[in-house]
Amino acid sequence: MKNIMKLGVPALAALAIAEPAFAQEAAADAVSGGTAYIFNTLLFLIGGFLVMFMAAGFAMLEAGLVRSKNVSMQCLKNIALYSIAGIMFWVTGYSLMYVDVSGFIGTFGPYSMQEVGGADLETGYSTASDWFFQMVFCAATASIVSGTVAERVKLWPFLIFTAVLTGIFYPITGSWQWGGGWLSEMGFSDFAGSTIVHSVGGWAALAGALIIGPRLGRYADGKVNVFPGSNIPLATLGTFILWLGWFGFNGASQLAMGTVGDVSDVSKIFVNTNMAAAGGVVAVVILTQLLYKKIDVTMALNGALAGLVSITAEPLAPSVGLSIVIGAIGGAIVVFAVPLLDKLKIDDVVGAISAHLVAGIWGTLAVAIFGGGSFGTQIVGIVAIGAFMVITSAVVWLVLKFTIGLRVDEEAEEMGLDKAELGMEAYPEFGHGSQSL
Amino acid sequence: MKNIMKLGVPALAALAIAEPAFAQEAAADAVSGGTAYIFNTLLFLIGGFLVMFMAAGFAMLEAGLVRSKNVSMQCLKNIALYSIAGIMFWVTGYSLMYVDVSGFIGTFGPYSMQEVGGADLETGYSTASDWFFQMVFCAATASIVSGTVAERVKLWPFLIFTAVLTGIFYPITGSWQWGGGWLSEMGFSDFAGSTIVHSVGGWAALAGALIIGPRLGRYADGKVNVFPGSNIPLATLGTFILWLGWFGFNGASQLAMGTVGDVSDVSKIFVNTNMAAAGGVVAVVILTQLLYKKIDVTMALNGALAGLVSITAEPLAPSVGLSIVIGAIGGAIVVFAVPLLDKLKIDDVVGAISAHLVAGIWGTLAVAIFGGGSFGTQIVGIVAIGAFMVITSAVVWLVLKFTIGLRVDEEAEEMGLDKAELGMEAYPEFGHGSQSL
Amino acid sequence: MKNIMKLGVPALAALAIAEPAFAQEAAADAVSGGTAYIFNTLLFLIGGFLVMFMAAGFAMLEAGLVRSKNVSMQCLKNIALYSIAGIMFWVTGYSLMYVDVSGFIGTFGPYSMQEVGGADLETGYSTASDWFFQMVFCAATASIVSGTVAERVKLWPFLIFTAVLTGIFYPITGSWQWGGGWLSEMGFSDFAGSTIVHSVGGWAALAGALIIGPRLGRYADGKVNVFPGSNIPLATLGTFILWLGWFGFNGASQLAMGTVGDVSDVSKIFVNTNMAAAGGVVAVVILTQLLYKKIDVTMALNGALAGLVSITAEPLAPSVGLSIVIGAIGGAIVVFAVPLLDKLKIDDVVGAISAHLVAGIWGTLAVAIFGGGSFGTQIVGIVAIGAFMVITSAVVWLVLKFTIGLRVDEEAEEMGLDKAELGMEAYPEFGHGSQSL
Repeated sequence: MKNIMKLGVPALAALAIAEPAFAQEAAADAVSGGTAYIFNTLLFLIGGFLVMFMAAGFAMLEAGLVRSKNVSMQCLKNIALYSIAGIMFWVTGYSLMYVDVSGFIGTFGPYSMQEVGGADLETGYSTASDWFFQMVFCAATASIVSGTVAERVKLWPFLIFTAVLTGIFYPITGSWQWGGGWLSEMGFSDFAGSTIVHSVGGWAALAGALIIGPRLGRYADGKVNVFPGSNIPLATLGTFILWLGWFGFNGASQLAMGTVGDVSDVSKIFVNTNMAAAGGVVAVVILTQLLYKKIDVTMALNGALAGLVSITAEPLAPSVGLSIVIGAIGGAIVVFAVPLLDKLKIDDVVGAISAHLVAGIWGTLAVAIFGGGSFGTQIVGIVAIGAFMVITSAVVWLVLKFTIGLRVDEEAEEMGLDKAELGMEAYPEFGHGSQSL
Repeated sequence: MKNIMKLGVPALAALAIAEPAFAQEAAADAVSGGTAYIFNTLLFLIGGFLVMFMAAGFAMLEAGLVRSKNVSMQCLKNIALYSIAGIMFWVTGYSLMYVDVSGFIGTFGPYSMQEVGGADLETGYSTASDWFFQMVFCAATASIVSGTVAERVKLWPFLIFTAVLTGIFYPITGSWQWGGGWLSEMGFSDFAGSTIVHSVGGWAALAGALIIGPRLGRYADGKVNVFPGSNIPLATLGTFILWLGWFGFNGASQLAMGTVGDVSDVSKIFVNTNMAAAGGVVAVVILTQLLYKKIDVTMALNGALAGLVSITAEPLAPSVGLSIVIGAIGGAIVVFAVPLLDKLKIDDVVGAISAHLVAGIWGTLAVAIFGGGSFGTQIVGIVAIGAFMVITSAVVWLVLKFTIGLRVDEEAEEMGLDKAELGMEAYPEFGHGSQSL
Repeated sequence: MKNIMKLGVPALAALAIAEPAFAQEAAADAVSGGTAYIFNTLLFLIGGFLVMFMAAGFAMLEAGLVRSKNVSMQCLKNIALYSIAGIMFWVTGYSLMYVDVSGFIGTFGPYSMQEVGGADLETGYSTASDWFFQMVFCAATASIVSGTVAERVKLWPFLIFTAVLTGIFYPITGSWQWGGGWLSEMGFSDFAGSTIVHSVGGWAALAGALIIGPRLGRYADGKVNVFPGSNIPLATLGTFILWLGWFGFNGASQLAMGTVGDVSDVSKIFVNTNMAAAGGVVAVVILTQLLYKKIDVTMALNGALAGLVSITAEPLAPSVGLSIVIGAIGGAIVVFAVPLLDKLKIDDVVGAISAHLVAGIWGTLAVAIFGGGSFGTQIVGIVAIGAFMVITSAVVWLVLKFTIGLRVDEEAEEMGLDKAELGMEAYPEFGHGSQSL
């Protein structure tokens, strides 16, 4: 995403073309300021509903990858976190991230969107459309966390963490870059949020996984016990929905389509985004075939996501071929990061740390590697945001742990959160889901 | 939705801006009539496909909430009702609702859309795009009914009822308001259809539930037996799809985005719609935690829907904070309406009467409570449409009951409609779905 | 789809309106060249993401219709084929199909899309948006094949076939028509690809089904053994997603919405597309009720798809009523084609040959029957493309068969591809999926 400060540009650019209409042809080609305003707003709305639908994608991915005894809980967490993220982003988030950012933080308090029928042509887009688009990004960040800490975190502590993450932490780090703060002034480059969204969610998830600890029996007797996902087609559906949503995520982060140049760039972003995901899938398919002689379906799904995360820091500049390579490296990262985390006994139920955090770091570095900025600045951004997120997240996770408690008791974990915490099984009639494993 | 009669306005407004281009800047800002026409049409198309996809949302929600022995039937009913609704809305519906409405009803017969390449700039939008958008609203109304009467109504009577509902009843009540009929002239206010769509579907469902009666064993031995839904993630997916579709439902009911003001209002509607749903979820989560110590996932899903229904009567005027409140009250209504209906032995399989009818009434009243119209007029509209729908629906349900029969026999109901009526189980390989319960 | 050669027209037309702005009203109505460019590009982007999502639709349809022991494999095949199609369409596909087509074939090599920020107003649309839209069509063709040959084809040979199909065969036949080649010059008419996409996929699938042979036990003891689909709601979801995607498939094949006439035509296409699908569903529901006394749900789903395929060759010209009829005939075709293929012992797991190939032929002929072209030319196109696809596909399938082998061994087929080839069950906790059947 470009900085919000640059947002006025498209409308102005349109005016610039239109104003001194020397030749008749130029006038006939021009996009009027009002028309550009509508296009820019429409981009936010379309991008916004596509990213909103990613909430369903995360829900299905996670519901498919947890064991059947925890599926209802995972569904509840996902719809609740999306709801809380929206409310918190209104209560404090947007203002902290975008209003009068003084380097490290914006201002407190709910954000007032324009009144009905009110619209300021100068901004070049509707403020409500921008708010909507920014809000769904905030929600996506929270969705990343829920998968990692699934199957053992209690509901309410998780929801409280979500509120803090979406109302305070994400907006603060976001203000550093997209709010025009210090990282942005330093020249950090992260177009649609490999770091600002995906790594932020990933760091929060990592801190959670470390503090909550692995699931019972996951690393017992010195080996890694695999707990297979309960519903692979749901996980596949979730991945496809996320892939779909990413066209909004990256495409609408162009923040404007009211000029011929902007809409052409949005198109290029669509292509590169798709190709990076394709590269991620193919890399995982080939690598797992070579390494394990059997292709790991859930890893292939994570390969698509890692490819998408990898291209998110710069989905516009690379050629198509380079986009495939960037995505493929992202996919390869998943193949190696997932067992590495297991070796470290960091239990990430859905592979979100690998696909979002590690691939997000890769994508952010790739910007500099392929000529889109300073390597040093990219590292500063990654490290600063990582340090901030790990420390602040850890504090909240620890406070929750030592107050209301973070983790269900062993009996509840064995029984499954659906029965133990909710009293409602996800698949009450299928097999013996809740007894198994 | 504004009345169709007001539809010409946006294009005219655009012309008004453009015509006497005094200052150069005004000309540079203006949206031309042709451009406004394309934007308005595009709004109908995007809104239309989003609402169309709600058919999948209803299908998944219902397939997830019925028992596994009735899932194939529920899938069939949903794809068939969407198909029949489209055909009937073309055969009689649109004309009854919108063509030469004389207070209480329009005219009979199929509606002719413009010819290929033909387009009348004066209307400000393509007639086919408007038809498509109106058609998917009609289909949504029918979708509401199918969930309530699931698991015991026979297929063909249900499809016949659907044809009458979508071809005659919905268009007639629709003509009263959106067709410019008597309710509209009285000043009734229902932007996108809390009453016109959701309560209409809800009243038809209520009449059906009363006449068909509860499922076998549902209220046996003086207590309410819970029949848990067979697939919670599918129900969750359905809810997210409906949430997504609602951006089209409410947003495109602005009926125009060819001016800067209109597209800004569409944006505001997106935000309010989302926040009302979020409020509904959070309200249910908190309330069920307080009341039952356990959160009810399916009720949280219905909380989202109730929040959406509640804001549908006026998604534009409220502030963001008020939208959250309106949605939260909608969610709370579900928490109390669902057990109340059970006390009355009204068996609503998916909670549609609570989420669509009761929350729809609340949303319609909320317009007046928060200053958007006359309280008396809102009540007149609710009562008139309720009376019409209950009486006419009851007549059709009763005629079907005493002719071809409405309900499967007890043996078929025990066995499940999938095996008994279709000979095709939804999950032939999973557990013992069809024997259980 | 119109030929790409005609693509410059909309922008020019817009200019034509705008240039000699005689009357003030004309100027106020005009769509500027730049605005038309943005609209045209936006149509490709929206249409593109809708068609992209059809990959999820095919995945869910097929995952729902195979037995549970092959579901993971079907998911993997679908996400892998979509990825490979994108890469191959970039490596060779687009250039073969669209660049300097000399009657029968274009040129070799990757296609270079415009640079960042670069855009040529003369073309009337962004080249990357066009590429994206064309790519998802190519992927849809490959998706058709995977369902037919499911449950017995090995993964790698299938993926290799996919690469050849999407990188070479589909682009070559596509060049004959949409690339401006010999069929196009002859006057063949196929708006959005009843033949160019659906029959091409169907022919490739037919060749595969014949060469790979039926599943074990499918036609044993002189009768047809039904292997019921394992998850009907997933198949239903897949159908709804495909239906949704078809608005992009047919609607955006208008290739322009930068004029009032074009966007009105897109609207008409939306309506006709929807009504043909509705006609297909209703025809199957009525026919299977009459013929078998029980409605076949999966056939109703295929009825929707057959209706959609049928209208795809000409979704613009027919009246609404005729669209319903064309779709209904498509649906009826499925009812008769499915048992006919079984009689011929051609084992098509999901009915794709019936819904895509046979209905595709019907749709292509329907163009001529209802006055949209020469009957002879339509037949020439159908036969030429059929002959080319069957022969070339058969060669590749046979080469694969006699080199790396096409089919898993009997033990693996009995066990299911999920366990045998992937070592990962789709539903590890539900019932005894992998043992049954």
